[in-house]
Amino acid sequence: MNLAPAEKRFTPIIILLLVAALVAVIALWATDNAGRQTAGGHRGEALAGSDEYFEWKLVTTWPKNFPGLGSAAENLSRMVDEMSNGRLKIRVYGGGEIVPALGVFDAVSQGVADAGHGAAYYWKGKVPSSVFFTAVPFGLNAQETFGWLHYGGGLELWEEAYAPFNLVPMGGGSTGVQMGGWFNKEINSIEDLQGLKMRIPGLAGEVFTAAGGTSVTLPGSELYTSLQTGVIDALEWVGPYNDRILGFHQVAKYYYYPGWHEPGSVLEFIVNKESLAALPEDLQAIVRYAARASSQDMLDEYTGRNNEALRELIEDHGVELRRFPDDVLRALWEGTREALDKLATNDPMAAKVYASYSDFYKGVRNYHHISEQSYINLRDVVLEDEDF
Amino acid sequence: MNLAPAEKRFTPIIILLLVAALVAVIALWATDNAGRQTAGGHRGEALAGSDEYFEWKLVTTWPKNFPGLGSAAENLSRMVDEMSNGRLKIRVYGGGEIVPALGVFDAVSQGVADAGHGAAYYWKGKVPSSVFFTAVPFGLNAQETFGWLHYGGGLELWEEAYAPFNLVPMGGGSTGVQMGGWFNKEINSIEDLQGLKMRIPGLAGEVFTAAGGTSVTLPGSELYTSLQTGVIDALEWVGPYNDRILGFHQVAKYYYYPGWHEPGSVLEFIVNKESLAALPEDLQAIVRYAARASSQDMLDEYTGRNNEALRELIEDHGVELRRFPDDVLRALWEGTREALDKLATNDPMAAKVYASYSDFYKGVRNYHHISEQSYINLRDVVLEDEDF
Repeated sequence: MNLAPAEKRFTPIIILLLVAALVAVIALWATDNAGRQTAGGHRGEALAGSDEYFEWKLVTTWPKNFPGLGSAAENLSRMVDEMSNGRLKIRVYGGGEIVPALGVFDAVSQGVADAGHGAAYYWKGKVPSSVFFTAVPFGLNAQETFGWLHYGGGLELWEEAYAPFNLVPMGGGSTGVQMGGWFNKEINSIEDLQGLKMRIPGLAGEVFTAAGGTSVTLPGSELYTSLQTGVIDALEWVGPYNDRILGFHQVAKYYYYPGWHEPGSVLEFIVNKESLAALPEDLQAIVRYAARASSQDMLDEYTGRNNEALRELIEDHGVELRRFPDDVLRALWEGTREALDKLATNDPMAAKVYASYSDFYKGVRNYHHISEQSYINLRDVVLEDEDF
Repeated sequence: MNLAPAEKRFTPIIILLLVAALVAVIALWATDNAGRQTAGGHRGEALAGSDEYFEWKLVTTWPKNFPGLGSAAENLSRMVDEMSNGRLKIRVYGGGEIVPALGVFDAVSQGVADAGHGAAYYWKGKVPSSVFFTAVPFGLNAQETFGWLHYGGGLELWEEAYAPFNLVPMGGGSTGVQMGGWFNKEINSIEDLQGLKMRIPGLAGEVFTAAGGTSVTLPGSELYTSLQTGVIDALEWVGPYNDRILGFHQVAKYYYYPGWHEPGSVLEFIVNKESLAALPEDLQAIVRYAARASSQDMLDEYTGRNNEALRELIEDHGVELRRFPDDVLRALWEGTREALDKLATNDPMAAKVYASYSDFYKGVRNYHHISEQSYINLRDVVLEDEDF
């Protein structure tokens, strides 16, 4: 029996609730404030975002861990992991692991994967202007292409070309100038190209066909056997560092130079627009600069490794180097002009990119005549056969 | 007046305290758990470290915001700020702001500043081997030097050479090949070098003096007036993009090529070892990869900007380009060999670095004969005077 009036009976409960609320508020405030004190006031909001954890799938057009070409994505993943303190994990899949090698563009466009690594000119059927972002026969070399992309308006055009596909492109390394390729017979004149079956994809393939050859598109995995069995008479892949691994020196005698078809192939990272936008700003920056750092690293890797591989091919495997005759190169240049004109006529975006590219080309070629080109030739004038 | 017994009076207070404690515990648990759910359990420790805030001073040998050379440090600072979400702020100081331009090495070594940007060959007096990490006359170009640093053992040697000074070196951009310089008279033979006073620092200056000239070391700020007043007869600075800004075309008629003395100058970031070690691992990675990304960016900037500046110098300012005669270049090469041999004889570390450098040089020159060099010459063979 409780003799106290109703209001007296409720007083302790009301006090209890008020005090509990006060304690809870103090506890929450104290916890929040502890975070702010170490973080610095202006970063409170950003730190809340920075605790989020992300996992990305990155699909590539290369076999998993393929030297050089495959290094870029692995390096990107490692750099992002280190810099983000594990907040963004990028899992790399080789070609065919979760999507086919040539399905990378669609997979990233549709959000099946968050990012991809490959070469823009693979998507020429969908984006005709894409050839300029990888390599054009007789075009810019690696250093020049990076100059055009980052200080000549190239990257902005690339972004414009890929925007309708929900993709953000970034430079993804370079192989440097690629070798002219492996041949089973000597090429002494333009007549020797007639009827020759060569694996040579992209715009260069069109040019080769226009010059009287037959261009064939085959994946890397089928090249060795196709050359061995005579399905093809010639092929180009990359350069000594990569070609040695696939063993072409076992089934072809002549290794041709100068490369004319891919003078400084720049690879690409592509990122799904929503996947990128979903990241806090610091992680977006980490992805962009890691791409840039891994891009430089690939060119350094090729520059460092190609020469060792070339020496081995020649000294240990008896490969014979041959130079394409000038008239063959001139015929291929004529074909290249026609192919580029056709490309620009049929696609307004390709015309716009071509204009930017050729404008940069004129200027940089002019300057490199008296700088990079002049210097690299000077070494032979002064050193002759001496070693440094 | 309260008629209830003592134990009855305390009951509501006890309940109140118990409930308040429970609410507080629940509130704290809920807050903590919300953090863990987004963070992922394995990162608890690392996240605690990542809340720390750092400020670095970076001192440079360049005037603040100098185009190209000065961009690297500003880009590094911006990239690190974005990627670290403001946890590492790097404040950049131009030469002379807090330490003299040529006091950068000592300042970072002694911890007066945390980091620096300059060129390794400035410290030749302290570290004779340092010339190889910047540029050597007739040596590796930019692409080749980066290849040597990152895939030829160069960076490890650089780290070894700087370790006694408490410094960690990183590549900090490249100007590409530098121009031969500005002259007030034509150089037609080795006789024309006799007694010629030229501002040309470093190993190249020694070589120039051995060839009969007189090398002078002057800071960039004094070059214009010195050439104008005849204190010097010639000077080299960088290339069109930088030279145009200093106005040398107003006081010299001839612009010489090919550059022979700095074929691909690589700049440097130096970081105080303790400053770097004091950062959590993610920030250390951010500094390293930002250096790499900003390094690539500088070469792209020079590649993009030099050609515009060259056109302006020739078309708008009537600058006349001249080529050094081959016999002059050969004499300078002989002097370079002697200077390098002397360097290696007097310093064991320089001998070790020279051996690595020349080994890489042989291989990469051999490969570039059939790749980069062969390709850049091919463009003239096929395009002749045509535009791309």
